[in-house]
Amino acid sequence: MLWAKDLPLDQTLHRFTVGDDPTVDLEILEFDILASAAHARGLAWIGALTIEDTSALVKSLGELLQPARDRELVILPEQEDCHTLLEAELTQRVGEAGKRIHLGRSRNDQVATAVRLWMRHHLIILVEGTLDLAQALLTFGEANATIPIPGYTHGRRAMPSSLGQWAVAYVEALTEQAQAFQALDHRLDKCPLGSGAGYGVPLAVDRQFVAETLGFTRVHLSPIDVQNSRGRLERAFTSELANLGLIIERLCQDLWLYTTEEFGFFGLPVAFTTGSSIMPQKRNPDAIELARGRCRELRGIAATVDHLAGGLSGGYHRDFQLLKKPLFEANRHALDVLEVMARLIPGLEVRNDRLAKAMSDDLYATQVAFDLVKQGATFRDAYREVAEQVTKGTLQRPQGKPPEHLGSPDQPGLDLLRQEVEQARQWPTQRREALANTESQLFDLSTIRAQS
Amino acid sequence: MLWAKDLPLDQTLHRFTVGDDPTVDLEILEFDILASAAHARGLAWIGALTIEDTSALVKSLGELLQPARDRELVILPEQEDCHTLLEAELTQRVGEAGKRIHLGRSRNDQVATAVRLWMRHHLIILVEGTLDLAQALLTFGEANATIPIPGYTHGRRAMPSSLGQWAVAYVEALTEQAQAFQALDHRLDKCPLGSGAGYGVPLAVDRQFVAETLGFTRVHLSPIDVQNSRGRLERAFTSELANLGLIIERLCQDLWLYTTEEFGFFGLPVAFTTGSSIMPQKRNPDAIELARGRCRELRGIAATVDHLAGGLSGGYHRDFQLLKKPLFEANRHALDVLEVMARLIPGLEVRNDRLAKAMSDDLYATQVAFDLVKQGATFRDAYREVAEQVTKGTLQRPQGKPPEHLGSPDQPGLDLLRQEVEQARQWPTQRREALANTESQLFDLSTIRAQS
Amino acid sequence: MLWAKDLPLDQTLHRFTVGDDPTVDLEILEFDILASAAHARGLAWIGALTIEDTSALVKSLGELLQPARDRELVILPEQEDCHTLLEAELTQRVGEAGKRIHLGRSRNDQVATAVRLWMRHHLIILVEGTLDLAQALLTFGEANATIPIPGYTHGRRAMPSSLGQWAVAYVEALTEQAQAFQALDHRLDKCPLGSGAGYGVPLAVDRQFVAETLGFTRVHLSPIDVQNSRGRLERAFTSELANLGLIIERLCQDLWLYTTEEFGFFGLPVAFTTGSSIMPQKRNPDAIELARGRCRELRGIAATVDHLAGGLSGGYHRDFQLLKKPLFEANRHALDVLEVMARLIPGLEVRNDRLAKAMSDDLYATQVAFDLVKQGATFRDAYREVAEQVTKGTLQRPQGKPPEHLGSPDQPGLDLLRQEVEQARQWPTQRREALANTESQLFDLSTIRAQS
Amino acid sequence: MLWAKDLPLDQTLHRFTVGDDPTVDLEILEFDILASAAHARGLAWIGALTIEDTSALVKSLGELLQPARDRELVILPEQEDCHTLLEAELTQRVGEAGKRIHLGRSRNDQVATAVRLWMRHHLIILVEGTLDLAQALLTFGEANATIPIPGYTHGRRAMPSSLGQWAVAYVEALTEQAQAFQALDHRLDKCPLGSGAGYGVPLAVDRQFVAETLGFTRVHLSPIDVQNSRGRLERAFTSELANLGLIIERLCQDLWLYTTEEFGFFGLPVAFTTGSSIMPQKRNPDAIELARGRCRELRGIAATVDHLAGGLSGGYHRDFQLLKKPLFEANRHALDVLEVMARLIPGLEVRNDRLAKAMSDDLYATQVAFDLVKQGATFRDAYREVAEQVTKGTLQRPQGKPPEHLGSPDQPGLDLLRQEVEQARQWPTQRREALANTESQLFDLSTIRAQS
Repeated sequence: MLWAKDLPLDQTLHRFTVGDDPTVDLEILEFDILASAAHARGLAWIGALTIEDTSALVKSLGELLQPARDRELVILPEQEDCHTLLEAELTQRVGEAGKRIHLGRSRNDQVATAVRLWMRHHLIILVEGTLDLAQALLTFGEANATIPIPGYTHGRRAMPSSLGQWAVAYVEALTEQAQAFQALDHRLDKCPLGSGAGYGVPLAVDRQFVAETLGFTRVHLSPIDVQNSRGRLERAFTSELANLGLIIERLCQDLWLYTTEEFGFFGLPVAFTTGSSIMPQKRNPDAIELARGRCRELRGIAATVDHLAGGLSGGYHRDFQLLKKPLFEANRHALDVLEVMARLIPGLEVRNDRLAKAMSDDLYATQVAFDLVKQGATFRDAYREVAEQVTKGTLQRPQGKPPEHLGSPDQPGLDLLRQEVEQARQWPTQRREALANTESQLFDLSTIRAQS
Repeated sequence: MLWAKDLPLDQTLHRFTVGDDPTVDLEILEFDILASAAHARGLAWIGALTIEDTSALVKSLGELLQPARDRELVILPEQEDCHTLLEAELTQRVGEAGKRIHLGRSRNDQVATAVRLWMRHHLIILVEGTLDLAQALLTFGEANATIPIPGYTHGRRAMPSSLGQWAVAYVEALTEQAQAFQALDHRLDKCPLGSGAGYGVPLAVDRQFVAETLGFTRVHLSPIDVQNSRGRLERAFTSELANLGLIIERLCQDLWLYTTEEFGFFGLPVAFTTGSSIMPQKRNPDAIELARGRCRELRGIAATVDHLAGGLSGGYHRDFQLLKKPLFEANRHALDVLEVMARLIPGLEVRNDRLAKAMSDDLYATQVAFDLVKQGATFRDAYREVAEQVTKGTLQRPQGKPPEHLGSPDQPGLDLLRQEVEQARQWPTQRREALANTESQLFDLSTIRAQS
Repeated sequence: MLWAKDLPLDQTLHRFTVGDDPTVDLEILEFDILASAAHARGLAWIGALTIEDTSALVKSLGELLQPARDRELVILPEQEDCHTLLEAELTQRVGEAGKRIHLGRSRNDQVATAVRLWMRHHLIILVEGTLDLAQALLTFGEANATIPIPGYTHGRRAMPSSLGQWAVAYVEALTEQAQAFQALDHRLDKCPLGSGAGYGVPLAVDRQFVAETLGFTRVHLSPIDVQNSRGRLERAFTSELANLGLIIERLCQDLWLYTTEEFGFFGLPVAFTTGSSIMPQKRNPDAIELARGRCRELRGIAATVDHLAGGLSGGYHRDFQLLKKPLFEANRHALDVLEVMARLIPGLEVRNDRLAKAMSDDLYATQVAFDLVKQGATFRDAYREVAEQVTKGTLQRPQGKPPEHLGSPDQPGLDLLRQEVEQARQWPTQRREALANTESQLFDLSTIRAQS
Repeated sequence: MLWAKDLPLDQTLHRFTVGDDPTVDLEILEFDILASAAHARGLAWIGALTIEDTSALVKSLGELLQPARDRELVILPEQEDCHTLLEAELTQRVGEAGKRIHLGRSRNDQVATAVRLWMRHHLIILVEGTLDLAQALLTFGEANATIPIPGYTHGRRAMPSSLGQWAVAYVEALTEQAQAFQALDHRLDKCPLGSGAGYGVPLAVDRQFVAETLGFTRVHLSPIDVQNSRGRLERAFTSELANLGLIIERLCQDLWLYTTEEFGFFGLPVAFTTGSSIMPQKRNPDAIELARGRCRELRGIAATVDHLAGGLSGGYHRDFQLLKKPLFEANRHALDVLEVMARLIPGLEVRNDRLAKAMSDDLYATQVAFDLVKQGATFRDAYREVAEQVTKGTLQRPQGKPPEHLGSPDQPGLDLLRQEVEQARQWPTQRREALANTESQLFDLSTIRAQS
């Protein structure tokens, strides 16, 4: 271990302090590799590492990247974390140079950087997944745009709606969420390297150079805030995942309700249902329920991060170690849910007969009242008049189509949202290109140099 | 009541369903007035309300604005909420026209709009308050920039730091938070009006016109998502407040620790302390503790919103009513904490003697190791060498100043952050101007017209 | 103020530190009065207060009790809290003796004691309210015991059930909850008095005597833990309320679902519904939705307490002040929900036709399979056989009644639970008697005495 | 799979619905075995299974018990859960009889029973662990009973305390917690078997017989509530763990503070500290910080359960599957923390010199005031007099020892708590015996019989 000074170390203690790191850290190993390459180039830049040592280190780091991504590297319990594994791998490959790379950095800024790169990487995937689900809903909405469905308030029939209007609701929310993920990326676009253990390093590092090398726009200026941002940024990230969960949970609740025998508006693809161990007749909407449950769990995991992040004074605390697992788990669950839902939506069977039957006359009461207003009544008087008709059972469904407006059942705005979703696709595309660019430059040995 | 149809209504039930609305709704009355003016102009625009009626309504709304802001209007229990109060006030002032204003809207889109305007209004105030605290810290940091203080990790002395570096940490975090509030405002910049009860209205309203009239850039397209966004947007808002709380909680924890007898780095202004009922000698840091507590409570209130927002299917549910109180309370607590902390920071007494005494030699161990590296050692070998010196008690504090970099104790970046804070001030200024503009146009009776 | 030492006190600060105490503390004033009487008698017992002074104090405290219960006393902002109000009232009534009562106690143990008495008092009311709702459900279940209703799993029709079986589910859960409240009371049955500010008092108080005088079985031995239990006990209390909320939320969800147009099993009493401001035909289940929302809010408030209780070291911290409001609010909401639901249940209209129609043949598939087992098949083979019948549409509803067991639809156990509920009533009855006893002894001036 | 009816099953879906069950379910496999044995005996008892089949099943179950405990059995992905694994193992060993055991039960009541047995089993271990830590603190307190330490309120020196008084605080809290765990066990002591999928089974099972066979005192009467209690009981369990966490978090915070350079009251055993990768001089209190973090995480995991448990209507939902992992994780973390802390306490080094130095005169101000009261002053006048002395710097430490009382620094009650801890040990001992008894009877083939 990096910090071992030949002290006896109790096994229990070791297990307790190492915790889940040997598994969990595999998530961020590839990002630690990228950050290490930038850090090495930064040392070379200020003359603190020779070009030869730097080249050897960067070359080895480049060779470790794919194995790290393929999860082929193993963190031994005695190595504790990915940082020690990496230093060990480097030292084994390049000898003394491997013992030089930790100059001017601390595990504290290493992990902060690796986690931040991880977050920025996954925001791209999250935006893509969110837009995939939005597109599945758009396609469903377009195919069934004008099919009527009752609009519910308080779970009671309220006004006429359409499947187009229903689908658009979730598309708009998901697009908003995609934009929120993008805004979060902007918040994260500050490079922690050079902040050391939280107070900078006694070395004249060029933090701006390293930040750019690693593909960040800005330096995270305050070394203390780099540490204080542990928990805060995980909180921001998991909070957005919980927000995404809230959107999908409502979608699931709609589907759960609309696929009951009693509503019967939609049929679920049989592959998305499971059976019972005791009741031979059952087909259960397990996928929807588990997606719903995962969405709720996302709020719970965000709460865990909330609890872990609180109660601390400034600077690094070991409690931060526990932030990694909930962060990664929340992300994995969110991606799973996005994928399952994006695959489920196209399989939804629309039951026109049940939908048509549910379009009862009372749904048109407001339209009748508005018609009376057109004939001169005040709205309040028209309301009372129609309420009476409802009570007496004399309400008649209006003949004409209701007037339309942006967002109304017959003009739900599918085309507008199709455009917006396509526009939102640009950001992940650009980010992927930028990342590829950064990476290829990072491992281009020909450009390693010291400032003149 | 708007919806009463001469049904017997049990007192208990009435109290239960009305809840805290008569008090709580006073927070949003002014925004309901603004939205009502825009809605009336929108009805006039499409010919659904005469210019005369509209002018009378808008004039009365304009007259109600200041009393609403001064909390001079009272919501009677039987009125239940601000929407009924408003309609009653209008009907009393302009007669029949008052009964016409509810055409083409529902309390559902009224409250969604009013709450959204409230949020956008308070984001301005929150940004200002956040930057006020940032500036107080900047000023403190500038006045004490180079005074040394130990940097702590794990609450143990780690490396040399400075009061400038300490102050900058919170300034950078607060500036990030101010930007996050601004990003949230962008998320909220979608007008709900015209969404009715959640499925649009059977009237050819011009939602874009109304949105612009009310100062929104965009229409919140999906009427269903307007309802589904209840809870989601309150969640986003209170989550940012909780994030702000996390920043200030750490600041409070630092101050709480640094003002103990044992640390003694800072003295608290006596006005910010209180005494004990039993111990005559005590001066307690109650203000800091209550600020800390309020910061923690912000996470709790965000959790309340999380619970309220979850578990629902699409469309409006009465559960949404309960979202208002935690939203307003969280905001009030956040503003209180910002104010108290901004007033406390300038009064902090810096105890140079205690700080100097705490700058023990071991804080320089890393610098000594880096000096060995400059003489050719690998970092790992240098580390081991210095660790041995520490154990033997032979470590000597280095003579020279440590090399500097952006963010290091002697170059904390106060000037850069001063610029960033000033830049961040522009947004609230612009928003205030835009709001004033919107409001003056809203109540300019000479411009009420129908589209040609 | 008790602790003011002629220091200038900024208004903002005062408002911030006082917070909601002038309102909130009215909840515990009566319990502070009881505790003060016990404390005074304790001082007399050890000779630290004369019998005359004690009698005067106890007499005045007795006179203040009813006004406190009637909320006739007002805490002035400058008095800050109920403890100062009480000392001021006493000093005004009995002069010098009023200045003697604070000997041997601190506001820290005063508030801990008052809150604990408040909790114990409200546990009685909560148990009664919980059992009232249980009884309403029992009565409903008894009246409709054998009416069939589909049993749902995953929200899909699963097996035959009955309204008796449905009602019993909530009765059993509520009875369990009533017992849990009782167990919590046992946890709280430790008297904090004598713990002072958290380290005891430099006076030879007889804590056991005071505890018994105040109706506690045990002394809360550790003065430090009295303080550490702040937050912990509020947590335990609000956690039980959240648990109660979980039970009632499911009941509400059942009712919400079963009263939709699509299920239609129950009709809601019209007094428990409200209308819409735009849709003349609507009757909405607002009471159920608000009860459901309050149940969810209970989890949120428990989360607030969780956040407030965490992050602290041992001993008193001012943060504790913020624990009072969420505690009282959660309790009020829980009692409101209990009352509303207990009044709603008897009004439920059972729609036999809709229920009968929903009893489709597939509900009996398991019974058919079990019948095959009786004829010799293994269960797994029978299961496959019946599954095939379902697919082919050849499943036939069995003629005979299914065998019964404890808890089955036709033997739901209403009588057993009726007994259990009645038994559970004993505890609150005994507690009320014990409290009345304690109180009458507390204010019986003839028994004030010093130990011999 | 039990419920597969030859449907194509998408891999993604399968992975999503199976989730972590193949790993997670290993936790409850042994309890599913015990419950299966009781269920089989129950079938025999009512004549639904032959004595031969039952004997074969019970024998095989008995043989599987130890391998299950040793985690030697593996749940294949296609088996999904422990219930299917178990049925497969039985069918393999005893042929047709294995296909008969699922008669009269559902996976729904299987998992409810297994989880409940798991909880009851771990409550024993939790009580033991809690009392182990209490005893470590008792021993520490007894060894250092009268060593003075400042008592802090608001983190400021308040009154004299002692290490005995400090240790007792946590002992009392832990003992209370042990009793709360025991009370929770009483709540869980209701057997779910016979509740089937949530509506009972069409078989005349003898639920009381099965309950007793499995070591339960009572039958969980309502089959619906067996399902509704999913989430509720996990909530109760994790809430108690969070409560335990709150106690230990405060202990950790004390230790963290008292081991800083600035306080210096305690030294940490070196094995409980770790080093830094950059700062050669550091010894960090990682074990304490991780224990603290785990305690906070416990609140987060309880919040996850809260979110998962909410938002549902009555009956089984697949969301319940997600409850298992947080339950097991919370338990594991709690046990880890208990063990680490119980091992850390005995190693604490008490620094008498630093403690003595911290006992400043102002700690005695209250005692001085009380001395003035003994000379005739009212407490309020004495308070003012001493406050003035403090301001003037004329306060003198009193000569005599302060009067004592139960719980005071010199009479902290170590002996009383020693007794209470020993008494609390009885329950886990009795429970272990009862469990061993139940198990040996369960697998005693000679007693398998049908009722006459």
